[in-house]
Amino acid sequence: MEFKVSTLSEFSNNVLMKAGVPSYEADTITRTMIEADSRGIHSHGLMRLPIYIERMQKGFIRTESKITVEKENKGTAVIDGHFSAGQVVATKAIDIAIEKANEYGIAAVSVKNSNHFGIAAHYALKAAEKDMIAIVMSNTAPLMPPTGGAEKVLGNNPLAIAAPSSGNNPVLLDMALSNVALGKVLFAKNNGVEIPEGWGTDKNGIPTTDPASVLDGGFILPVGGPKGFGLALMVEMLTGVLSGGDFSKMIPSMYDTTKKQSISHLMIAINISSFMDVNTFKDLSETLGSYVKNALKAPGVSQLYLPGEIEFGVEEKRIKTGIPLSDGVLEDLATLANTMNVTPLTEVLK
Amino acid sequence: MEFKVSTLSEFSNNVLMKAGVPSYEADTITRTMIEADSRGIHSHGLMRLPIYIERMQKGFIRTESKITVEKENKGTAVIDGHFSAGQVVATKAIDIAIEKANEYGIAAVSVKNSNHFGIAAHYALKAAEKDMIAIVMSNTAPLMPPTGGAEKVLGNNPLAIAAPSSGNNPVLLDMALSNVALGKVLFAKNNGVEIPEGWGTDKNGIPTTDPASVLDGGFILPVGGPKGFGLALMVEMLTGVLSGGDFSKMIPSMYDTTKKQSISHLMIAINISSFMDVNTFKDLSETLGSYVKNALKAPGVSQLYLPGEIEFGVEEKRIKTGIPLSDGVLEDLATLANTMNVTPLTEVLK
Repeated sequence: MEFKVSTLSEFSNNVLMKAGVPSYEADTITRTMIEADSRGIHSHGLMRLPIYIERMQKGFIRTESKITVEKENKGTAVIDGHFSAGQVVATKAIDIAIEKANEYGIAAVSVKNSNHFGIAAHYALKAAEKDMIAIVMSNTAPLMPPTGGAEKVLGNNPLAIAAPSSGNNPVLLDMALSNVALGKVLFAKNNGVEIPEGWGTDKNGIPTTDPASVLDGGFILPVGGPKGFGLALMVEMLTGVLSGGDFSKMIPSMYDTTKKQSISHLMIAINISSFMDVNTFKDLSETLGSYVKNALKAPGVSQLYLPGEIEFGVEEKRIKTGIPLSDGVLEDLATLANTMNVTPLTEVLK
Repeated sequence: MEFKVSTLSEFSNNVLMKAGVPSYEADTITRTMIEADSRGIHSHGLMRLPIYIERMQKGFIRTESKITVEKENKGTAVIDGHFSAGQVVATKAIDIAIEKANEYGIAAVSVKNSNHFGIAAHYALKAAEKDMIAIVMSNTAPLMPPTGGAEKVLGNNPLAIAAPSSGNNPVLLDMALSNVALGKVLFAKNNGVEIPEGWGTDKNGIPTTDPASVLDGGFILPVGGPKGFGLALMVEMLTGVLSGGDFSKMIPSMYDTTKKQSISHLMIAINISSFMDVNTFKDLSETLGSYVKNALKAPGVSQLYLPGEIEFGVEEKRIKTGIPLSDGVLEDLATLANTMNVTPLTEVLK
C-alpha cells in the first residue's frame, strides 16, 4: 500500500502529539522518518515510531525537549540533550554548528544524553543546503566485536558526509560502519543462501558464511575488517567520549525497554565560502561527480552512481507517487493507532 | 640489516641536502620517513627517498619550500604549497590548524599544490601531542574504480584520526581507503595463492580472486565496496575539491616522472579542552580502549589491539634495536648514495 507524504506526516504527528510531544517537535521527528521512508531507508522510517512512543511512555525519551548548552567556545559547543528526542536535539545541534561555521569557517557541536536521531543524512543535508560540507556522526548501542573479538563493543556507528554540487543533488554519503545490517543476514537465512565472508561471525567470534550461526548469538562485523573497526572506534571517540556521555558497553539497546539510552552525536559544519567561491566549489564537485558517473563500466553494469544518488531518485519518485509501507509496519502502526486513539492509516485511505 | 635511527636520519638528511633541501626542511622530510620505517610501514619509509629526489631533480618537487596562505577565516585557512615537499607543507598546515584550534576550538586547514606527504599519522600525532583530536586526509593519484566501474577514478586516499589517551599511546587510525595495497596482491601472486573477494577486479572491472588478473591491467577496490568508495570520494571532495587543487583523473602517478603532481590535504584539529577537561578525556579514551582490549576473544586469538597499537609496539622495539631495511631498498639507496655522492649506508655500518 502506498501513502502520500502528507498522509503519513499527519498520522505520525497525531501519534506523537497524543504522546505529549509539542506540534513543532513532532514535526521535526516526523520529517526525518518520512525522509527515510521516501528514500527507501525503511529501517529508519515510520517503522521506528512504535519504539519511540514506547520509550516516551516509559519516560526514557522526554516528550517536550530540554536542551542546554553545557560548554561553549567560539567554534564549538557541547550540548546536553537531557534525554530529549534525538531528532530534536540533533536539529538544534546542526543549527548551532551552521551558525558558528558562518562566523568561524568551521564548527563542531558535540551532543550528549540524546536518543536515536533517525537518518544522519537529514542533518548533513541541512548544512549542505546552507552551502556547507557537513560531517555527522552518532554512536549507538554496541553490536560489533573488535577484530578477533567475541563480544559486542562497538556500535555500527553511522557516519554521514554531505557536500553541495551543481549536479541534480548534493553528494551524500550516509553509512553504518558495519559491513551490512543484521536484516541482510536474516534475509539470507530466510532464503537459504550463504553470506559472503566478512559479514559475520558465530557466537565464538569465528568468521562464518552461515547466516544461522550469525543469528544464533553471533556478531555482525565492521565494514572492511580492521579498517571499519578502527573507524567505528574513532566515531565512538568523537561522539560518546568527546561529549562526556555514554559509550560502548554503557549503552543498552534501544529495544531494551527497561533502560534509558544516552546517545552522543557530533556535527561538524565546514563553511565552503571560507575556502573558495561557493559556485566554483559546486561546479568542481559536479566535475568530480561526472568523473565517477562517466567512468568506463564493467560488463553488465548500465550505470554508475554517486553516493546518495539512488536514494534521491527513489525519493523524487515517491514524493509524486506515494510511499509504500510493508504489511508488517502497517500492522504495527495500526496497533499503535489503536493504543493512541488516532485514526489508523488504512482508515485515512478509504 | 638493521640501522640506528640516527644513522638512517643522517643518511637521508645528507641526500636531501645534496639535492638542495635546506637542513631544517630535510629534517622534516626525513623524520616522517624514519617514523614510517620505525613503525613497520616500510611503504612510506626510506623506500620513497629515491623517487622524492628524482622528482626534485626534475623540478616537480620544490627543494626549498614556498608556502603561502591564500585565504583565511578565523578557524580556517587555504594554503598553496607551490609544489614544495608534501611533508614540509603538511607540517606547516597542521601547525596552523593547531594554533587556530587553540583559539577557536576547532580549525580546518586546506592545502593545495602539495606533494606526497608520507604517513598521514605523523601529522595527526602532532595534534594529539597537543591534546587535540586530529583528522588528516590527502588525495592521491587515482587507483580505484567506482563500484561497477572499470577505470581508475579515485585514489586510495589516506585518512588518519588520532586521539590522546592516558593509555600507553594515543589511539591512532591511519588507513588507505583501498581494501589492500597492490603490494599484497603481488605477494599473493608470487606465493601462488588466491586473493579474497573484494580485493580487486580484472581489467574489465569484473571482480576476481586471481591476483594475476588484478596485476594485468586490473584494479584494486575500495575497502568495503560502496562504503569505502563513498568515503574515498568524500575525502577527494574535502581535499582536491575544497582546496581548489587537482583531483581524481587530473593527478598523474608519483612514479610518472614526466609530470608534476598537485596533491591536496585537509587537516582538522579539534581542541579537546573546548569540550571537556583534557585529563578526563584521556581517562575516558583509555576506558574505551580497555573495553576493546579486554573484550572476549575468538578461539586462537591471544590479544586484541587498538588501532595503531601494533605499530607503536614495533616502533618502541626498533628505536632500541634498530630498523631493518630490505635488500631491495638498500640497493636502491646505495645507487642513490652513489649518484648523490653521499656515503652509502652500508659503508657507515662498517
